Amino acid sequence: MSSEDTLIHSDDPRHPANLICTLCKQFFYNNWCTGTGGGISIKDPETSHYYLAPSGVQKEQMRPEDLFVMDAQTLDYLRAPKLYKPSACTPLFVACYQKKDAGAIIHTHSQNAVVCSLIFGDEFRIANIEQIKAIPSGKVDPVTMKPIALSFFDTLRIPIIENMAHEDELIDDLHKTFIDYPNTCAVIVRRHGIFVWGPAIDKAKIFNEAIDYLMELAIKMHKLGIPPDCGIGEEKKHLAGP
Amino acid sequence: MSSEDTLIHSDDPRHPANLICTLCKQFFYNNWCTGTGGGISIKDPETSHYYLAPSGVQKEQMRPEDLFVMDAQTLDYLRAPKLYKPSACTPLFVACYQKKDAGAIIHTHSQNAVVCSLIFGDEFRIANIEQIKAIPSGKVDPVTMKPIALSFFDTLRIPIIENMAHEDELIDDLHKTFIDYPNTCAVIVRRHGIFVWGPAIDKAKIFNEAIDYLMELAIKMHKLGIPPDCGIGEEKKHLAGP
Amino acid sequence: MSSEDTLIHSDDPRHPANLICTLCKQFFYNNWCTGTGGGISIKDPETSHYYLAPSGVQKEQMRPEDLFVMDAQTLDYLRAPKLYKPSACTPLFVACYQKKDAGAIIHTHSQNAVVCSLIFGDEFRIANIEQIKAIPSGKVDPVTMKPIALSFFDTLRIPIIENMAHEDELIDDLHKTFIDYPNTCAVIVRRHGIFVWGPAIDKAKIFNEAIDYLMELAIKMHKLGIPPDCGIGEEKKHLAGP
Amino acid sequence: MSSEDTLIHSDDPRHPANLICTLCKQFFYNNWCTGTGGGISIKDPETSHYYLAPSGVQKEQMRPEDLFVMDAQTLDYLRAPKLYKPSACTPLFVACYQKKDAGAIIHTHSQNAVVCSLIFGDEFRIANIEQIKAIPSGKVDPVTMKPIALSFFDTLRIPIIENMAHEDELIDDLHKTFIDYPNTCAVIVRRHGIFVWGPAIDKAKIFNEAIDYLMELAIKMHKLGIPPDCGIGEEKKHLAGP
Repeated sequence: MSSEDTLIHSDDPRHPANLICTLCKQFFYNNWCTGTGGGISIKDPETSHYYLAPSGVQKEQMRPEDLFVMDAQTLDYLRAPKLYKPSACTPLFVACYQKKDAGAIIHTHSQNAVVCSLIFGDEFRIANIEQIKAIPSGKVDPVTMKPIALSFFDTLRIPIIENMAHEDELIDDLHKTFIDYPNTCAVIVRRHGIFVWGPAIDKAKIFNEAIDYLMELAIKMHKLGIPPDCGIGEEKKHLAGP
Repeated sequence: MSSEDTLIHSDDPRHPANLICTLCKQFFYNNWCTGTGGGISIKDPETSHYYLAPSGVQKEQMRPEDLFVMDAQTLDYLRAPKLYKPSACTPLFVACYQKKDAGAIIHTHSQNAVVCSLIFGDEFRIANIEQIKAIPSGKVDPVTMKPIALSFFDTLRIPIIENMAHEDELIDDLHKTFIDYPNTCAVIVRRHGIFVWGPAIDKAKIFNEAIDYLMELAIKMHKLGIPPDCGIGEEKKHLAGP
Repeated sequence: MSSEDTLIHSDDPRHPANLICTLCKQFFYNNWCTGTGGGISIKDPETSHYYLAPSGVQKEQMRPEDLFVMDAQTLDYLRAPKLYKPSACTPLFVACYQKKDAGAIIHTHSQNAVVCSLIFGDEFRIANIEQIKAIPSGKVDPVTMKPIALSFFDTLRIPIIENMAHEDELIDDLHKTFIDYPNTCAVIVRRHGIFVWGPAIDKAKIFNEAIDYLMELAIKMHKLGIPPDCGIGEEKKHLAGP
Repeated sequence: MSSEDTLIHSDDPRHPANLICTLCKQFFYNNWCTGTGGGISIKDPETSHYYLAPSGVQKEQMRPEDLFVMDAQTLDYLRAPKLYKPSACTPLFVACYQKKDAGAIIHTHSQNAVVCSLIFGDEFRIANIEQIKAIPSGKVDPVTMKPIALSFFDTLRIPIIENMAHEDELIDDLHKTFIDYPNTCAVIVRRHGIFVWGPAIDKAKIFNEAIDYLMELAIKMHKLGIPPDCGIGEEKKHLAGP
């Protein structure tokens, strides 16, 4: 086995190369990554290498051999499959690693994200829903030093940035959201999809699932006439007839 | 194998530790437990121990090793996985065991439950639908002593309680529903989800599926302008144009 | 193996006992038979025995051991599992075998059927959709003696009967539809579900899938303001504005 | 093994006979080919033979033995299963091979295609959505000679033709779209479904997934009151109130 191959071959289903393939398949069947849309990257907790799904591959068919591996310091490719090009998302993933201390980033073309980007202006907002508690507030408990989640009574706010012709052109607006929304773990790209990150792949996956659930619910609330961030007990005032 | 492990390791797929894992996976792919939401508990019919899914675990990946086991008398943990915290639902599950003689409790973040909690006031109501017959009336046949199901012409009523910041704060309102709705096998928590119980896990699962089906149908009826509890033959009067 | 067991045990996946289990699982995950709703029966082409799914069993977990087998002449049970009761649909299935020369009958609690029964009056109607061609017209080609399918320009009509407290009470109205709609291969039961039959299980399954597709489409057309049986080119006249 | 069988039996999952079966199953569970609707054909890159799914077979149960194989020059069948008839789509598939240099054609009864054909007139249009970039513009880079994809700011246009009683009657209108829309990789058939082709099966599959995603999104936009081809930033003007 060449040294390149040792980077991606492992019997451990939790190895980043295996996890990316498993999750791409799961996301494909969740309709988040059809038509080769979307992408995913995981930082190996041991080596700190960035594992990256390539561009243009059918997500449900991805194999470890298809992945790129990048050195976290030099940003050189330690491994590049001959058949594929790096994902155009790569600079955005690197920005999340470097500026947000991410351990993994998930990018989907979720229709819930696209529809929310049509309904909402510069910010997705939903409040007073139990599932919000799956999302981190960005604050840390001063005693335990553990991250504090949003509470049921909080409002989840996710910035929405405008899409560009090429994904790497999103980098400036992404950096701007890091300043304007220092606590966010996600950015919606209008008419495009969503980027979600976390300190490790398990967390990123949980955040992505919870946010997609909340975006789906927000669309349903909008259709019922209920503002997704309306106060508890205000629903009936807004409820569209009959 | 330590005595702790004998509590959770069995070749029998019907063993509570195996069933919880199987059902959590099934519920995850039904979109009831994404983002680590929801939970489940089964009372072992032989030992009466309570088996409990932990907090914060991805439901489709749950393993028997992840489960808590509680003594039904002392409420002490006979087994507690080091990595996880008990679910915040635990006191609610215990209340269902103790006050409702439940054999299993299912808690989901079903979007149908959340949307119904926005449409309905203090009570979910649907009438004259065949699937209602899957739900127990709470009455018992005086001859056979078997539970009597609701009939097609009955109205299913499920109480809706308000959500709180922490799940254990729901306990008072849960107890109140036990008094106000002595025959209910479910409680909807507004903007949160639903709790469904039954005398055994098979029954709880069937009740949960039937109630989710009925909540989904009630939302569709509401959108068509038809009150979900309207009389047979009254639909066309309510049917929203065109 | 007792003679009872030889009725239900076969290595052939096309044996009725195996097919019923496979299809119940498939239908469960299609949301047609959750909460133990629905049922299925297949006539063994070789022995003419009727194979029947029992009442109250979780459809995705059904095993050959759970099935009833009935003699087609005497209507006596050749095999009856001790744990279960016969399905309340049994008399309706037998009526389809005897009066419609059915080879299999599928009964689901499809939400599309229930919603269509709320939108439509005494008859479900849809016209000018390609998928209609999967449904038999009831006529036979006088030369080849093969059944003739509906054409694209035909209107599919399915009778809708009222639900009763008990399924066996549906028998009179079912017989009436056999007279009023001699060519139909399906009957919708209002606020309940649908019965679909065919000369063999493959045909019944295809008819059921095609009808469910057409009911789903009819609901979407209704919501857009387009009558599901409107003429080709008339759609835009009806299309509800934004 | 007879020479006929060598045409369809291979251990390679990428062999056209195996791929057709795998994809038919995947498409069935995506609700694109239920009730035996739809079809698929792949040109073997090595022999140029056309592999064709037959008429009337349940798509999730298709086996290599069920397939037709056609000589690309003579259009004679090199292999024809005794039990089945050729698909009525065959002349349309052959037209795509001959006139569009297709390597594979996918035909589905996608409800998104049917609903779009009811909402739109002679042309499906959507603009300014990231997923559009999965669709080829029909132009070729003059330097690399590689196909150029649509850009985010482009409008995807897919012609809609009227359905006929028999699929082979669609051939004239299909040829007409080849002239009027020389760059399209798809044609929607009103009240019927969609045909999508590409230079190879992987591409055809990706185009089909991306187009279905875009049709689904267009329907959602229409329901929100937003024209699917409206300009960026114009959404809020159109957004139907609650």
